[in-house]
Amino acid sequence: GHPVYRDMPTTIFEHMSARARETGAINLGQGFPEGPGPQDVLQAAADALLTRSSQYPPMPGLIELRTALADHYARRQGLDLSPQEIIVTSGATEAIAASLLALVRPGDEVLMLAPLYDAYLPLVERVGGVARVVKLTPPDWRVTRDALEAAITPKTRILLMNNPVNPTGIVLREAELALLADLCVGHDLIALCDEVWEETVYDGLPHRPLIGFPGMRERTVKIGSAGKIFSVTGWKVGWMCAAPPIATLLARAHQFLTFTTPPNLQWAVAQGLGWPDQWLNDQRAAYQASRDRLAAGLIKAGYVVQPSGATWFLSIDLPASGIAMDDVTFCNRIIDEAGVAAIPISAFYPDDPVTHLVRLCFSKSDATLDQAIERLATFR
Amino acid sequence: GHPVYRDMPTTIFEHMSARARETGAINLGQGFPEGPGPQDVLQAAADALLTRSSQYPPMPGLIELRTALADHYARRQGLDLSPQEIIVTSGATEAIAASLLALVRPGDEVLMLAPLYDAYLPLVERVGGVARVVKLTPPDWRVTRDALEAAITPKTRILLMNNPVNPTGIVLREAELALLADLCVGHDLIALCDEVWEETVYDGLPHRPLIGFPGMRERTVKIGSAGKIFSVTGWKVGWMCAAPPIATLLARAHQFLTFTTPPNLQWAVAQGLGWPDQWLNDQRAAYQASRDRLAAGLIKAGYVVQPSGATWFLSIDLPASGIAMDDVTFCNRIIDEAGVAAIPISAFYPDDPVTHLVRLCFSKSDATLDQAIERLATFR
Ligand SMILES: CSCCC(=O)C(=O)O
Ligand SMILES: CSCCC(=O)C(=O)O
Repeated sequence: GHPVYRDMPTTIFEHMSARARETGAINLGQGFPEGPGPQDVLQAAADALLTRSSQYPPMPGLIELRTALADHYARRQGLDLSPQEIIVTSGATEAIAASLLALVRPGDEVLMLAPLYDAYLPLVERVGGVARVVKLTPPDWRVTRDALEAAITPKTRILLMNNPVNPTGIVLREAELALLADLCVGHDLIALCDEVWEETVYDGLPHRPLIGFPGMRERTVKIGSAGKIFSVTGWKVGWMCAAPPIATLLARAHQFLTFTTPPNLQWAVAQGLGWPDQWLNDQRAAYQASRDRLAAGLIKAGYVVQPSGATWFLSIDLPASGIAMDDVTFCNRIIDEAGVAAIPISAFYPDDPVTHLVRLCFSKSDATLDQAIERLATFR
Repeated sequence: GHPVYRDMPTTIFEHMSARARETGAINLGQGFPEGPGPQDVLQAAADALLTRSSQYPPMPGLIELRTALADHYARRQGLDLSPQEIIVTSGATEAIAASLLALVRPGDEVLMLAPLYDAYLPLVERVGGVARVVKLTPPDWRVTRDALEAAITPKTRILLMNNPVNPTGIVLREAELALLADLCVGHDLIALCDEVWEETVYDGLPHRPLIGFPGMRERTVKIGSAGKIFSVTGWKVGWMCAAPPIATLLARAHQFLTFTTPPNLQWAVAQGLGWPDQWLNDQRAAYQASRDRLAAGLIKAGYVVQPSGATWFLSIDLPASGIAMDDVTFCNRIIDEAGVAAIPISAFYPDDPVTHLVRLCFSKSDATLDQAIERLATFR
């Protein structure tokens, strides 16, 4: 037999999107914006196709994009990264895979926080790592020193985390990030920080990158995604940032995974990063308005929702809403009976799941959100 | 320390291209066509960007592309593949990585033939496989039963091979393919067959896919590349074809590597595969003419070249040309002294290399080839 991926299911996002395509349900499951993508972003990529080369770009990415990213992070997050510390990948998933392939030796323990993105655990195990998962619980999902210390052993080498957090929309607090940084320094861990949601932090709060905390500059891999920043999830342009000794290892893993990323998309992202900050701020404001619209509509329909401070997601609290079903049952029922696809939060736990929350994606048009709200109101 | 990729060099192709960029040398090293790519191919991708969605396509690829590939292989290679047996990847390198991640368990032995593409060995070792390399030697590079049988043990589970062969331009003979198929069936091996050069077989010969040999339909992963077929190496659109039980495992590995591949490029490839066969035939004829031009020019300049029946490459035989240097020395000297970048064949051997051959890429304009020939003539 071939047991490696034998017991692994198809990712929940693909599964739910496939069911939504089959049933014609409104898809608030998998996280992607409605519509093809912003016109100016698409035009930049089309122009690059017709005016630039479609042959191999340099393996670590176009220097123009790496430079634009360094500038972007200096401007928006106060970071001092050099272009040589940034490696372009074919999406953030590739960046996570390349980081784990580059840094995890068989037997190394990898510390993670649940709920966790569904790619993390199979990748960690496939490269020979041993998962140590700290379970966070609602309503406040707080990260505590005791829980983390209890999970760290002399074999722990990597912290793999996500901030802002998919699926909860939580933004880690300053004190929690400081605690994580302190533990990484104290236990000599490398932090792989998946920050693909960094440009979707709402309510005027800043994004605080873990790499900016004391002692973290030399031991953090910061992972980002143009698909999220520019609302074109299919482009699969991502990157990983790290100090030179780690960046060298990351590039070696990347060169044998995808080698390079389509140059026209790299050009378009480089161009987009050069647009006035107002572009990103306007987009963020639009997503915040969509969050507020979905939350208000659901509340009016009698649902109780968890606060979401970031991402494209918010969650319904089933028991608080007076619904006596677990999350998987609810998701199966609403896709068939209400014509709305959603994601059960239990899918983000490897075991002992939280089962009373259902994630909805709000990066949709007002009309789509209103229709989904109406359908969910009727379903109750 | 982090030994996993510590001792791994930057790929020879990137290394030589970087040196060519620095020195301004004519780059006959890394394999890519001169120019941005065929105009109609680029236009199809630009049109798709502006008329189709840039959000996540289905994880295994657009059904339109998978259907177009099944039709293409039926027409050009007489294969009977269903679209469900084809998974689109972000380039053939991702397909190779996903196949190995999906199919190799720690301790499994992987049989390979040297010269071998430089990504194979590090990937095999990174997923816990044990490499068993059979060395082939010039001038005829023949695959023999004795050499293969000697390398197969009860732990051998995979044959990872390339046909047509990069770097030699060899097309495996019918009898060699039958032998490989026979060994795979006899020893219950899965064949990962990297056939990215399938549309560059010259001199009127057909491409013979290993999956078409008796007993191989259920045990072969056939890997292909749109970058090679359509002369747009930067696009990184590839695929892997396998019968359902294997295809399911491949998809699971793929979903956590890159998840999907840019949809506009998938649309363009699907469209291109629908063009009359003449398009591919004309392109192949043009590459064959380039091969002949470079070979004739080099011979006129006093070099002896190995015959090349496929790919974008041919090799100079140094001692036969009266040059008393090894391949690495020659490549280092011509990049500095003649302004021509090439690839030493020794880079394709993990150990005990063949050191008297130098690979040149001929997928260039006549003017570029003529200038390179002139420079190499002067260097002698
Ligand atoms: C890779 S598909 C999932 C996209 C996403 O980030 C989500 O829906 O959580
Ligand atoms: C991935 S860069 C190498 C391209 C190629 O196939 C070659 O030059 O051999």
